[in-house]
Formats: sequence, C-alpha cells, structure tokens
Amino acid sequence: MKYPLIATAIIAASMAMPAMADRVASELIKPIEPAVITEPAKAELGKKLFFDPRLSRSGFISCNSCHNLSMGGSDNLPTSIGHNWQEGPINSPTVLNSSLSVAQFWDGRAANLQEQAGGPIANPMEMASSHVLAIDVLRSIPQYRQEFAAIYGTEDITIDHVTDAIAVFEETLVTPNSRFDLWLKGDDSALNTQELAGYNKFKEIGCTACHNGPAAGGTSFQRMGVVEPYVTDNPAEGRVSVTGDDRDRFNFKVPTLRNVELTYPYFHDGAYWELEKAVDVMARLQLGRQLSDEEIGNITAFLKTLTGEQPSFAMPILPPSTNATPRPVPFEKN
Amino acid sequence: MKYPLIATAIIAASMAMPAMADRVASELIKPIEPAVITEPAKAELGKKLFFDPRLSRSGFISCNSCHNLSMGGSDNLPTSIGHNWQEGPINSPTVLNSSLSVAQFWDGRAANLQEQAGGPIANPMEMASSHVLAIDVLRSIPQYRQEFAAIYGTEDITIDHVTDAIAVFEETLVTPNSRFDLWLKGDDSALNTQELAGYNKFKEIGCTACHNGPAAGGTSFQRMGVVEPYVTDNPAEGRVSVTGDDRDRFNFKVPTLRNVELTYPYFHDGAYWELEKAVDVMARLQLGRQLSDEEIGNITAFLKTLTGEQPSFAMPILPPSTNATPRPVPFEKN
Repeated sequence: MKYPLIATAIIAASMAMPAMADRVASELIKPIEPAVITEPAKAELGKKLFFDPRLSRSGFISCNSCHNLSMGGSDNLPTSIGHNWQEGPINSPTVLNSSLSVAQFWDGRAANLQEQAGGPIANPMEMASSHVLAIDVLRSIPQYRQEFAAIYGTEDITIDHVTDAIAVFEETLVTPNSRFDLWLKGDDSALNTQELAGYNKFKEIGCTACHNGPAAGGTSFQRMGVVEPYVTDNPAEGRVSVTGDDRDRFNFKVPTLRNVELTYPYFHDGAYWELEKAVDVMARLQLGRQLSDEEIGNITAFLKTLTGEQPSFAMPILPPSTNATPRPVPFEKN
Repeated sequence: MKYPLIATAIIAASMAMPAMADRVASELIKPIEPAVITEPAKAELGKKLFFDPRLSRSGFISCNSCHNLSMGGSDNLPTSIGHNWQEGPINSPTVLNSSLSVAQFWDGRAANLQEQAGGPIANPMEMASSHVLAIDVLRSIPQYRQEFAAIYGTEDITIDHVTDAIAVFEETLVTPNSRFDLWLKGDDSALNTQELAGYNKFKEIGCTACHNGPAAGGTSFQRMGVVEPYVTDNPAEGRVSVTGDDRDRFNFKVPTLRNVELTYPYFHDGAYWELEKAVDVMARLQLGRQLSDEEIGNITAFLKTLTGEQPSFAMPILPPSTNATPRPVPFEKN
C-alpha cells in the first residue's frame, strides 16, 4: 500500500504546477531566490557603512549616493558625480543582484563584492578618501568599535572588515518575485500576451546568449558592438584594461537586466535614456537585427516584468562622531 | 462606595509617579510627544519627495542630502554642499523636531515648514531646480500623479501640494523618549548624578532663558554674542535680513538642543565641532560666565540626554522616471 500512495502524491503535485519544473529547467533566465541572511549583525553593520558618508573625504558621499537603494541601486545619471563634483568616467552599475555577477565593475577588475567595495572609497574621482583615513574615522567612533568587535572579535578595525561587512549587506540586495519569476515558476497569468510575445522575440533573436542566468546578465564579458561598432565619446576600453589582451578591447561585463526599468540611462556610457532605444541599439549592434516598433515595444514590455521586489529595510541610524574623529574636508581651502 | 474608590485610585496613581506633574509643569524644557500621524498617505508621499533627488537640477541632491535622517537630520558639515559643489552660506539646521520651531531657517524667513520646503528646491546654490521644472518632473511620473490625485483630488500637481506633503512628512520627524524626557516625566533613574548636576548648572546660569520649550530652543530669535561679540568670517547677519530692522542684526533663531549630540558642528557658521567648546562659548558670549572644565563636562553630559528616539522608517522606493521626464543636468556642458 505504501508505494502507490507516494506515487499518487507525486503525480498530484506535478499536476498542480505542471510548468514549474519545466520552465525553471529549460529557460536560460533563472529565478532569483530571496536572500538567506546568515549573518544579520554583519549585514546590519554593512548597511550602516553603505550609508555612511564619513567614508568619503567630504563627508557627503556614501555608497548609497551612486548606488541609491531608493532608485534601483543606481543614481540614474549617465555617469556619477564624485568628490568636488567631478564627472565620473562610466555609468554606475546597479548594486541590486550584483552578488550574482561573475565579477564587479564594467571591466570586471574586482573579483567579488568585497574587492569592489574598497575601490570607490579611495578613488580620488569618487569618495576621495583613503583606506587609512576611513579606518581612522571608524575607529574613533565607540559604537562602530563595539559592533566590529562583536562581529570580528577585535576593535582593531581593518579595511578588510569594512569591505567584508559592506559585501555581506550587498549580498542581501536581491530582488526576487518579479512577475517574470512568477511566470518562470509556473504562474501563467503573471505575464500578459504582449510581455510573453516580447520574451519569445527576445529569445528568438538571441538576447539570451548573453542575458542569461538569474540576473539575466552578469555572467560574461562581451564586445560592445559586434555587428556594428558602438559610437560613443566615452574613452572606456573595457576588459582589456584588466587583461592587457587586445582581443578584450571594448569587451564589457554584460549588465543585468533585472530591474532595468529602474536603472536608466543605459550602457556603460549612460548614453541612452529610453529602454526602447536601448533595445533597438542592442538588436542592431549585437545581433544584426532591425526590430519593428511593435517588436521593440513587446521586448520592452517583457523587460519591465524583470522588476522585482526592492529591498525594504529601515534607514540606518549612524553612530555620531566624537571629538577624536577626523573631520571631513568638504571644501579644499587655500 | 463610589467616590472613595475613585479617590483611592487617584492617590495611588499620584504616589506612583510623584514628580511627573511637577517637573512637566515646572521645568522650562518640556517633553516631546510622539508624532500623531493623521494623514499617513500624505506623510508617505512626503517621504518619497524628501528623498527624491529629481527635485534638484542635477538629479543628485535631495532634501535628505543636507538633512540626513541617518545623521540627526543634518549633514554634519560646517556649511552644506550644493549644486555643482557650491559652498553653502550657513550651517544646515536639523530637520528633526523642526515643526516645534517658531519659524524656519536661521533668520526665520519662512513662517512654517511648508514655506521652507520650497526654498532649497529653487535656490541656485542648493538644489538649483525651479518650481516649474520640479513639477514637470513629478507630473511626468504616473505613480506620483496617482498618489497626488488620491490625496489632493487632482493630478494637476502644484508646488503647494509638493511642499505640503514634505511638511507633513517632516512633522513626523520628532524624537520623543530621550532620557531627559523620561526624567521630566518622573523617572528619577533616567539621569545620573553628573547629568543632573549639568542640568541644574544649565538652568542656574540662564541657558533656559532661550533654550526652552519642547525643542529646548526654536522659540525665539536672539543676538549671537550678547556679552562679547561672536567672531566669525561668516557674513550672515541673521534676522535683520528679514525685518530690515537694524536691531535684529546678528539675531538668529535659537537652535534646538534636541539631539545636539548628533548635529555637530555647531552655530550658524558651523565653526565648533566639540560640544564642550560650544558650551564654553555660549556661556561666555551670551551669559558672561566662565565655566570650569567640570561644569562644562556636566552640562555636556546633560545635553547628551536630549538625544531622543530617531525616526525609524523604511527607505522609500521611488517611482521610476518615464521617457517624458525632463532629464537631470548633473554637469553643465559648453
């Protein structure tokens, strides 16, 4: 009597959601799963650091300034505003789902989020501090010392602790339960006819060759301008600056399409504000396809189904500086 | 049998907290009460607007940039960083408990929070937008249109709607239940001996003449430098710029001492970073008193008991721009 009952249960389950296993297995874009937070205290500390402008020389710029979690984890500017209003060299990628990328930065020069986090702090074009100064600031603040000690077992804060905590916070910034993911998991009503037509066209013309995986991108470096060259006045050369291999010239990390509705303007130079135009450019330059307005509209409608649940959390309250805290230098005096 | 029972209950209640009515009635600093939110949808819309950098020309500066709710509602800079990294003329006052002030800005040129909110948006030194442009941005975003329509009964958004919503959000930004307030309400254990000594000295030398009411300030305009002149290279002249009355020269709104631990640096020019030094300067210049280091330490300890519960809320998620949204101008091109 035992085996038949189990078999019946399995059959019933598979009849209840027949498409689930199929789509998750067969489609090249995979669902995003909610973050499993195994180190909540560390993530909470990382959140404070992510929002703390005292990691910048001016005391004005935090990670959240250019990776604004109210705005899709981006700044919605072509290139970012750095220390002293310097114009950044490249579009700020979204921090959302960045843990799912093969590497960090457009040229992949950081292997992971921890390595990435140290960059902007010390970049004179961005936060314009130094790791030494940032650590001096944090060490001067008793509440930070206590939090680091509770997590890392020492009040002797290092930059590795700082970037580790920020990275652990950033790993929580995933956006599950987009309508597309609901559809992937078997909910046929999650996409309408236009969106489904857009997705089918997206696959048919080959977009999933690069935009695949849970992030619908971030899994490889690809040439920007395969069939036709990409015209830009942005001097970035992409992956070659890391590898030194001339074959990597103009190769950039494929950006995630998750939340692409929120992360305008598009491409490494932030030159395109309209998602429809970005779709048109990609189809022509990468795939040699001239799409009709209807096809572009359909693909754009599909892309908007990739907007997931945005991270929701309480604004962190930062511990105050003390008389011993190195003071910010917002303006350079003569 | 009825009256005696009620009388017993009243006596029991008054014995349980004998100091409560006394201190609340007799002390010049009054407790801060929690915000009563009567228009939650409007406050939520105001929160979005408070955090939305698209109200600035650059798309980078929001109300929260200079009134950072992670940092005591201030930017912890002597003067603020405005559009194109312009140096602001005066220290940004905290937005916390600002609804309790007699007027807004150091010179009181805005009668209330709504009037204040329109200022920085259009100030070329600050957010450098215009009311027309800011409204065009908001009208181009369907989710904002819907929210305004649900609250104000029209999609025809005006600057008055915008500043009203921001003001209603700001009215929620009070900080009740500081240790000092617990003491005011009868909890003798809320202050230690040093803090109580500091408070008694604070009263004895006359600080409460100006720093009174629930915000411990914000109730009047007073001359900066009564007994001795205040030496500064900041050109602000205070209240005279509003009234034209020469007797108001160097009169400034008395700042709140609520959360003063978090709102360094101090005074309208932000020239003093250490609370102890600010106490020393105030005692000498305003009251002609040279305090000992111990007295300064005690008053400083008391002042830190004015740190209340910081507003806690979820980071707002802002609705995305559309193809019709006027684009930000972060950098002026030739």
